[in-house]
Amino acid sequence: MFKLAERITRENLIKNGEFLVIGGPCAVETEEQVRKVASALYDLGIKVMRGQLWKPRSSPDSFQGVGLTGLPWLQRIKEDFGMIIATEIVDKDQIEPTMEVVDVPWVGSRNMQNFELLKALRGNGTDQRPVILKRGASCTIDEWLQSADYIGRDRVILCERGIRSATDSTRYTLDLNGALVVKHDKRMPVIGDPSHPAGRADLVPALSRSIVAAGLDGLVIEVHPDPANALSDAKQQITPATFREVLGQIKAVYRAMDLSINRADLS
Amino acid sequence: MFKLAERITRENLIKNGEFLVIGGPCAVETEEQVRKVASALYDLGIKVMRGQLWKPRSSPDSFQGVGLTGLPWLQRIKEDFGMIIATEIVDKDQIEPTMEVVDVPWVGSRNMQNFELLKALRGNGTDQRPVILKRGASCTIDEWLQSADYIGRDRVILCERGIRSATDSTRYTLDLNGALVVKHDKRMPVIGDPSHPAGRADLVPALSRSIVAAGLDGLVIEVHPDPANALSDAKQQITPATFREVLGQIKAVYRAMDLSINRADLS
Amino acid sequence: MFKLAERITRENLIKNGEFLVIGGPCAVETEEQVRKVASALYDLGIKVMRGQLWKPRSSPDSFQGVGLTGLPWLQRIKEDFGMIIATEIVDKDQIEPTMEVVDVPWVGSRNMQNFELLKALRGNGTDQRPVILKRGASCTIDEWLQSADYIGRDRVILCERGIRSATDSTRYTLDLNGALVVKHDKRMPVIGDPSHPAGRADLVPALSRSIVAAGLDGLVIEVHPDPANALSDAKQQITPATFREVLGQIKAVYRAMDLSINRADLS
Amino acid sequence: MFKLAERITRENLIKNGEFLVIGGPCAVETEEQVRKVASALYDLGIKVMRGQLWKPRSSPDSFQGVGLTGLPWLQRIKEDFGMIIATEIVDKDQIEPTMEVVDVPWVGSRNMQNFELLKALRGNGTDQRPVILKRGASCTIDEWLQSADYIGRDRVILCERGIRSATDSTRYTLDLNGALVVKHDKRMPVIGDPSHPAGRADLVPALSRSIVAAGLDGLVIEVHPDPANALSDAKQQITPATFREVLGQIKAVYRAMDLSINRADLS
Repeated sequence: MFKLAERITRENLIKNGEFLVIGGPCAVETEEQVRKVASALYDLGIKVMRGQLWKPRSSPDSFQGVGLTGLPWLQRIKEDFGMIIATEIVDKDQIEPTMEVVDVPWVGSRNMQNFELLKALRGNGTDQRPVILKRGASCTIDEWLQSADYIGRDRVILCERGIRSATDSTRYTLDLNGALVVKHDKRMPVIGDPSHPAGRADLVPALSRSIVAAGLDGLVIEVHPDPANALSDAKQQITPATFREVLGQIKAVYRAMDLSINRADLS
Repeated sequence: MFKLAERITRENLIKNGEFLVIGGPCAVETEEQVRKVASALYDLGIKVMRGQLWKPRSSPDSFQGVGLTGLPWLQRIKEDFGMIIATEIVDKDQIEPTMEVVDVPWVGSRNMQNFELLKALRGNGTDQRPVILKRGASCTIDEWLQSADYIGRDRVILCERGIRSATDSTRYTLDLNGALVVKHDKRMPVIGDPSHPAGRADLVPALSRSIVAAGLDGLVIEVHPDPANALSDAKQQITPATFREVLGQIKAVYRAMDLSINRADLS
Repeated sequence: MFKLAERITRENLIKNGEFLVIGGPCAVETEEQVRKVASALYDLGIKVMRGQLWKPRSSPDSFQGVGLTGLPWLQRIKEDFGMIIATEIVDKDQIEPTMEVVDVPWVGSRNMQNFELLKALRGNGTDQRPVILKRGASCTIDEWLQSADYIGRDRVILCERGIRSATDSTRYTLDLNGALVVKHDKRMPVIGDPSHPAGRADLVPALSRSIVAAGLDGLVIEVHPDPANALSDAKQQITPATFREVLGQIKAVYRAMDLSINRADLS
Repeated sequence: MFKLAERITRENLIKNGEFLVIGGPCAVETEEQVRKVASALYDLGIKVMRGQLWKPRSSPDSFQGVGLTGLPWLQRIKEDFGMIIATEIVDKDQIEPTMEVVDVPWVGSRNMQNFELLKALRGNGTDQRPVILKRGASCTIDEWLQSADYIGRDRVILCERGIRSATDSTRYTLDLNGALVVKHDKRMPVIGDPSHPAGRADLVPALSRSIVAAGLDGLVIEVHPDPANALSDAKQQITPATFREVLGQIKAVYRAMDLSINRADLS
């Protein structure tokens, strides 16, 4: 088991010249389901797995997550696959009980301005884990960074996951412009989420490639062994087989950029 | 001189498996200026040049374009460099006088629902030139396609050039989601414009690469020999030297996709 | 018949301390239809009738208007009812043929940045008719005023008709905030259109009252003798009978404000 | 002191045919400050006072509220003026300690989808206090109602406080359309907040009148004895003197509607 002293830091995750890929299911549903994903990710060399124990849902009648029940499942995945675990924290009372298992807590889009949660994640200064902060669907760049300040800007990895626009033709609109502005002008690490803006699996590969090509620092992508029967986000999760293809595309684009592109415009 | 019978068609421009790159200044300012650009484009193997004779400007006090004065300059560029000429038509009375020089008329964002202009571009059926239809900044996919129907959907190349969103951190927000939906669901050719959504030159390379990586059919990019002194869009135009670099990036990403990416998700 | 010299001016229409009410059908369909409306308006003391000869439609397959065919119908309504006629001009070539009949040309939302049309409406300075300029659905206050500058700011009556927002629960969102800003900060006359933002007849009364109560200078409302069979905007047009009720509500609110409200906050 | 059994209910607050007016400062700053407001409200016959103990602020460097320190001040205002107290709850741990003093808890815009807070406000069923649920700045009507379902739809009073739009000319855009749709189609009580969408005091009277005229069930308005020196929202709070005028306007418009308006279109 990781001890606090051995915890990964933001600098471990976002290494200079590498591209962070986080994969995993929208929600942790069963131990079998998460192990299937973890195994597939392991085979592909992916080291960070996402998976939500608690699901913030628009409607109280929707699946709300397995909660702490799933924590030992994630613990065993850490032990068996050496996987780094990222999960969403939706309440400050979840921080302490999950502390030993969760390497990378994240704050979801709907909680980007839940300031009590942000303060709790800052804690008393001993917790140095990196925190992924997803952008609220209609929040400005300044609001996003101010929310990062609540946690501590040096621990935060920003995540662009789509804005709500007046002309949405998909679930959300991926805002690469906003992501580039925080990266370029504010020197903050930014990763992209192709799954939520797409809202449909068939557009995930194209948005994933565009995130790499824009020069962002990584992406987090929803992967499920059986998307059609997922308890949430069924339409936008991709299978491990598709993920393997997307990963090939991501690597190809990334390598092409490494070889031939002066990244001065982004750094 | 091209005759109507020799005109290029949409199929010539958007060839299967190739990526269309259109470069050129925001506005045609002087013959010397456009020749400089044309020469630089020629050296880079670019075959289609953009340049506006008429400039739709928010304020009546801004530069409105040189109008027909610049037409012979474009004509000589066609003759000397074999360049295909794309320019914006902002009034139906401009169609006839420019017919012999302009290979690819385009409709700007602000005129996407200027239906009288769209009807005039449809004409009587003898004009088979491809028409680029830029998307209105808050228009839906359906409205965009219905505007294409006014011209004739088989002649139109759609161009995503940024939407106006509630959280704009740049001039506009490039909407790859919308572009992918028209391409994927409607099987229409779509190119992207990285210059207007960026509104600043330093973000143009990143947005250009993301347009290629998303799998769109091409892009149109503003190139000016001396952006700082341009009469319009001074902040977002790039120099021929930067364009050469961007073109290298575009090609590298495009080749990477050709070699390794199953484009089934987009076609 | 009005002669140019007898034309009404903006100051005639927007009188200090009065509230301008313009009623009439979305589109002029038949002479019988417009006469029915004109007669109903006349009975209610309404002096300005709206009615479009040309209809800008998103789809080319939708009803496009009767065009010049309807002009004599409007002429006879002027003669028989003394009605002031407001109609949309969608092309510069329509200005001259309609000059003698149309007292108040208007520019629709989709043409707010059709600068060639705006320039043509400015004309050579002899045309002093008031022009209603509807706001584009995603245009800023500055863009709206700059478009007014193309026509001549002293002739223009601005009309707020709804913006396109990320959370539209109706056809558009009535933006009273924007209307108040142009009125308050820019001292421009602004009227409201309750019909298009509502997109449904049952919300028109409430939005009409809110326009009056906000202190705007008037409103333009769609009235049709048989909305269910209207050739356009069937869902949002109200009958003359409902219009009579709405007019009573408007007057009651307006009188309440006259008697008791210090309008200093708006003037 | 109120006991739980004597608590007001939603039906007490939103009475058929009456219009609810809630006034009070953005934030509780000092006992003197809130007593000044309470006294002014009392003199005007206002029975419900707002005032935030905790302030959710975009930046961690902004004033965060006096917290529980201010609770006895509010308690004494209840005792001395018989005032009903409404305050924002930003964390579930605040519910219990404030239970005896706070008659009407509210959920702010940024927490509309903080589902853990919503669940805590539902509690175990013994708490029957009305809860004001402000709309998130880019949330749809459906999301708003689903959030109400977390608390219990029969206890919730919805509050429209402005959306973030692509063309904001003020702090937010008051969305009467959305408010009317929830009232009309969903039969939910809806009040309006003129202060936050305005973001400037001089537009508050006009927006207040438009909220009444639209037929909403009430409004909540920020009143401060010395707005220029307020610790938050300094620009948009109005003085008790201005509030007296606005209240006169509200009553005049409301009475005009009572006397002459068939409210069938809204009920």
